[in-house]
Amino acid sequence: MDTTSRTYDVIAMGRSSIDLYSNDIGAPFEEITSFAAYVGGCPTNISVGTRRLGLRSALLTAIGDDQVGNFILHFLRREGVETQFIPRKPGRRSSAVVLGIEPPDRFPLTYYRDNCADIELTIDDVLATPIAGSRALLITGTGLSKEPSRSATLFAAEMARLAGATILLDIDFRPDQWHDQRAFGVTLRSALRLVDIVLGTEDEINAAMLTDPDQISITHSQISDARVSGDTDAAIQQLLNLGPRVLVQKRGAAGSRVHLVSGADGAMRIDVPGFPVEVKNILGAGDAFASGFLYGHINGWGWYKATRLGNACGAILVTQHGCANFMPTYNQVMTFIQDRGGF
Amino acid sequence: MDTTSRTYDVIAMGRSSIDLYSNDIGAPFEEITSFAAYVGGCPTNISVGTRRLGLRSALLTAIGDDQVGNFILHFLRREGVETQFIPRKPGRRSSAVVLGIEPPDRFPLTYYRDNCADIELTIDDVLATPIAGSRALLITGTGLSKEPSRSATLFAAEMARLAGATILLDIDFRPDQWHDQRAFGVTLRSALRLVDIVLGTEDEINAAMLTDPDQISITHSQISDARVSGDTDAAIQQLLNLGPRVLVQKRGAAGSRVHLVSGADGAMRIDVPGFPVEVKNILGAGDAFASGFLYGHINGWGWYKATRLGNACGAILVTQHGCANFMPTYNQVMTFIQDRGGF
Amino acid sequence: MDTTSRTYDVIAMGRSSIDLYSNDIGAPFEEITSFAAYVGGCPTNISVGTRRLGLRSALLTAIGDDQVGNFILHFLRREGVETQFIPRKPGRRSSAVVLGIEPPDRFPLTYYRDNCADIELTIDDVLATPIAGSRALLITGTGLSKEPSRSATLFAAEMARLAGATILLDIDFRPDQWHDQRAFGVTLRSALRLVDIVLGTEDEINAAMLTDPDQISITHSQISDARVSGDTDAAIQQLLNLGPRVLVQKRGAAGSRVHLVSGADGAMRIDVPGFPVEVKNILGAGDAFASGFLYGHINGWGWYKATRLGNACGAILVTQHGCANFMPTYNQVMTFIQDRGGF
Amino acid sequence: MDTTSRTYDVIAMGRSSIDLYSNDIGAPFEEITSFAAYVGGCPTNISVGTRRLGLRSALLTAIGDDQVGNFILHFLRREGVETQFIPRKPGRRSSAVVLGIEPPDRFPLTYYRDNCADIELTIDDVLATPIAGSRALLITGTGLSKEPSRSATLFAAEMARLAGATILLDIDFRPDQWHDQRAFGVTLRSALRLVDIVLGTEDEINAAMLTDPDQISITHSQISDARVSGDTDAAIQQLLNLGPRVLVQKRGAAGSRVHLVSGADGAMRIDVPGFPVEVKNILGAGDAFASGFLYGHINGWGWYKATRLGNACGAILVTQHGCANFMPTYNQVMTFIQDRGGF
Repeated sequence: MDTTSRTYDVIAMGRSSIDLYSNDIGAPFEEITSFAAYVGGCPTNISVGTRRLGLRSALLTAIGDDQVGNFILHFLRREGVETQFIPRKPGRRSSAVVLGIEPPDRFPLTYYRDNCADIELTIDDVLATPIAGSRALLITGTGLSKEPSRSATLFAAEMARLAGATILLDIDFRPDQWHDQRAFGVTLRSALRLVDIVLGTEDEINAAMLTDPDQISITHSQISDARVSGDTDAAIQQLLNLGPRVLVQKRGAAGSRVHLVSGADGAMRIDVPGFPVEVKNILGAGDAFASGFLYGHINGWGWYKATRLGNACGAILVTQHGCANFMPTYNQVMTFIQDRGGF
Repeated sequence: MDTTSRTYDVIAMGRSSIDLYSNDIGAPFEEITSFAAYVGGCPTNISVGTRRLGLRSALLTAIGDDQVGNFILHFLRREGVETQFIPRKPGRRSSAVVLGIEPPDRFPLTYYRDNCADIELTIDDVLATPIAGSRALLITGTGLSKEPSRSATLFAAEMARLAGATILLDIDFRPDQWHDQRAFGVTLRSALRLVDIVLGTEDEINAAMLTDPDQISITHSQISDARVSGDTDAAIQQLLNLGPRVLVQKRGAAGSRVHLVSGADGAMRIDVPGFPVEVKNILGAGDAFASGFLYGHINGWGWYKATRLGNACGAILVTQHGCANFMPTYNQVMTFIQDRGGF
Repeated sequence: MDTTSRTYDVIAMGRSSIDLYSNDIGAPFEEITSFAAYVGGCPTNISVGTRRLGLRSALLTAIGDDQVGNFILHFLRREGVETQFIPRKPGRRSSAVVLGIEPPDRFPLTYYRDNCADIELTIDDVLATPIAGSRALLITGTGLSKEPSRSATLFAAEMARLAGATILLDIDFRPDQWHDQRAFGVTLRSALRLVDIVLGTEDEINAAMLTDPDQISITHSQISDARVSGDTDAAIQQLLNLGPRVLVQKRGAAGSRVHLVSGADGAMRIDVPGFPVEVKNILGAGDAFASGFLYGHINGWGWYKATRLGNACGAILVTQHGCANFMPTYNQVMTFIQDRGGF
Repeated sequence: MDTTSRTYDVIAMGRSSIDLYSNDIGAPFEEITSFAAYVGGCPTNISVGTRRLGLRSALLTAIGDDQVGNFILHFLRREGVETQFIPRKPGRRSSAVVLGIEPPDRFPLTYYRDNCADIELTIDDVLATPIAGSRALLITGTGLSKEPSRSATLFAAEMARLAGATILLDIDFRPDQWHDQRAFGVTLRSALRLVDIVLGTEDEINAAMLTDPDQISITHSQISDARVSGDTDAAIQQLLNLGPRVLVQKRGAAGSRVHLVSGADGAMRIDVPGFPVEVKNILGAGDAFASGFLYGHINGWGWYKATRLGNACGAILVTQHGCANFMPTYNQVMTFIQDRGGF
């Protein structure tokens, strides 16, 4: 199905937040004196990241009837992300994230997502959004964590599937957003029939096949960076059996590995090297990756080159303080790649 | 996989209730003076129905720490249904149903399912149940309506699939148990990859593909008998594309139609005639059908004969006052069939 | 303030239910085969009881959009209780009670009050009711158990106080309706400044001053008849210090004791003998008492005679099967008293 | 009752939060780039304020099992406020406040209090705190907004009353913390029988007697500074009739007015002038006032002098950026007063 004439290149659906990131880099959380104010949330970051690269990008999240919602909207509009489908949810609160930054490996995070607006996305909100007018739909694991967002997200994926759009799922495993961490995998596996491309870290891939909550370890309140043990290769094979044709395994500094379904002999692998940089803050790096990868995919690039662009975007972001506010532009990432020897 | 040596023939999972059925047959609800006290709930009825026919049957439901829970348990034990896996849920209430009976076509029903115990079934409850020790697992649509029961039910189906058990889904569409009636279809469709055999009426099949809530009409508070318009044949084809190999369409007095996935040319149909009887109370007839059908299936009967037994069980039940308490025994249903010319 | 010209003699505010009472008197709950269908709930019973005695009585309860709500309304209208102020609460359920009857001392009870309609009474519902047009307002402890009913009930009492109406509080202690049984007393004590006359059993009076949950013992699921230990006389004195001028202590077969605030020397007591009868079902006896007492009070009788009428109404009710449906008429209770030697 | 030998001078009970206050003074909320991180919440501010002045001060709030809770605790300990009675509430979140600062009159505020820890204070938490070992107990209106905090707060007041401690109520009207703004007044009025001294602004006093939600106007999301119209003098008289012997009316730059119950001829007034300063941020000024007032009261000062000290503390705080972190010490406030001509 030729989708090039569609209004949007990508609609991202799911959570958004004000991201409050410690300005006292290296200070323990108790001693933080101020926080920078950014915008974040996996699909929100990707909507901004793809927009900065040049895609026509829309976001379907929800905000409360509060100043924080205004803050999020104001930023998105300035970035040129389409915000007209974002509903206000009376009586619900715009999400917030509070983050400590102690590089290289401590990023304690507190979510303010109780009664949050974005988990109140409904099937009616989806119907008010031109899903069929987009070439790609990006959904996330957290969007499946609670109703009504869960069924709305699946409904959007069904609509996108019917319209021949590419459906990407960012696994986005946030353990404290689930009533039972095993329910995460159960739910994700049921959604995969609707997904073309899965994006996730090794921990997230293991989480998707988790059978025992003890496989998870969270240190320093790093909800967004849980360690999950497991047989990653077996997990990848099992996930690919459930519907997707591609699974991209994000491997941090080591780059990424693309797993393709390829007939009888199982999956085919493409290893795509990363770019070595000094880590300041890992949050949002995966979303920068997704933005670059999506840019390449929408423009018909091969898996290697699209993934390599994603790696570059991710590398740039880990050197930065925040998420959406620091997504690279097309020129920035291209210069970055050229400076490091090209694709 | 040979499963004949397993401990149970069928484990049914999901709701249970005290069923309070009007003793004033024909009286409007406002004028009812007494109610008979039975036990009901789709999977509960099926656990009793299959047991009476001779299967080794276990039930995984949950009850509150209340007298109504005792009532349900007492009945199941007397019937010989295995109840040892049924947890008590402190702070939750055993479900109740209050029903008026105005034949031939008014059966107003009120569910008492707020904060009910059976929707609190968890993955831990499933793990404490020998799912792999049963030849078949029966789950229901209502079991998917809310968490934690929803992910627990899918988890049980995954376990049964791994163990090579047959998985049956009774669609059991109860519109008032869902936050959005379109979410019912979204959720059901995501579960079908785990299901072998789907059981449903035409209304329920249409509900599974519902796009517009206006397709539903409920008269006289008949929550358990909503009319749902739609293109049933198209819906059957779509549902069969999502995983199941068999869909049994229950057609009331007209009998049943078995739809089989059969290679390139789509589904194959087997029409199985019903048994004409005078209707007293339609509730539970579908569960009696499922019991007979399951008996035949477990015993290796062909689709026609198993379905015909189901039709007979259903016909017997519509002449009765309640559900679980009136399921026919093997001898009763065989005599009934013989008296009407045999299979 | 002369209130004789007001439209209503009494407005009762609070819970209502379909009361399903075992028809198998003496059978353990598990073996009950049918339930009689009545109407109940403390203020509902009193609205019917006072009406049958001849008072102009209105009820402010709430019902769900369900058949059980219709059942309750239908009964009240037939009785001549004013129902026009009773709102329907969409998405909420009419309350239900299921009761076993094993005289003389086992009456196991299960409340279906999760998400119930009557606890959703709001200040707006109170404003839509002519509280100032009634000579008396009767409120209950259970009406204070949860919001929004709690603040609506207090608001109604403030309006009644302003209008010079008599405010009666039936303690109506139902331990499972409170998140913490000590919160019951805390809340009740805060309400007493608005109350003229308190009605309660010794157990309820002790519950109102409870400091340790272990003082409560509930046997055989008798939520409506918890035993609460304590120094009842001290409790009475403390309660009377908080606002009411009268506290009526219901003592079952032993009759009632009226405690009056009387200046410097504390409370004055009037002992009012009961009527010996054979107990069939104790539920509702206290509400029958309240009805008789209220009749006498509204008609300007003295404390002794009003209480004696209450005792007679209560005695009649314990010989009956249910609550509201069995409240005595004026002629019935007068004959009963005369047959036993008069007041 | 001589209470001078008690362990604490004051136990404050209720909410606490991380306070995130715009560092971009004057910027509209959407354009804020960073927030200073402080600690706040009415009783928390007062516990710090009284401690800095020299009182022995304990706080009974609750925090979640999160980094924000650690942040709050760390600050309180550094200040020397007793924190050993503060429980962690698993599954609940430490409260947060996000504030824009646009002097002189716009301070848009967003509360993150859904599922918050401090509203989960229970009667058991109160029993684990030596209420009887303190000379004064300070409670707040927001602590009465929801259960279980509401009954726990009233229970604490009952204990304090029994122990002969002074009970102060800061009205702390936060309209969005109530399901119905009229329920605020209903609830507050029921609590007053337990209160000795009430502290509130004119808006808050009017809110306590509010009959129509339209009396409230909130501009620029200033939840903590709602305007409430009404007859303040009549309201004061009505509130004083309900139990307290003193009501302190905070009048901003105009100082404060102390209303004393004084026998037959109603209340007596003492006007206490304020200190003119340039306003930077009004939040917390009332809590600084309460701290100074409490210091004077505990030390046996007269109403005028205690109130004048309160006025000075409040004046100092409005020139500061945040709340608890900027409470004046004894020396600071004494110097401030001397510099302005003394008491």
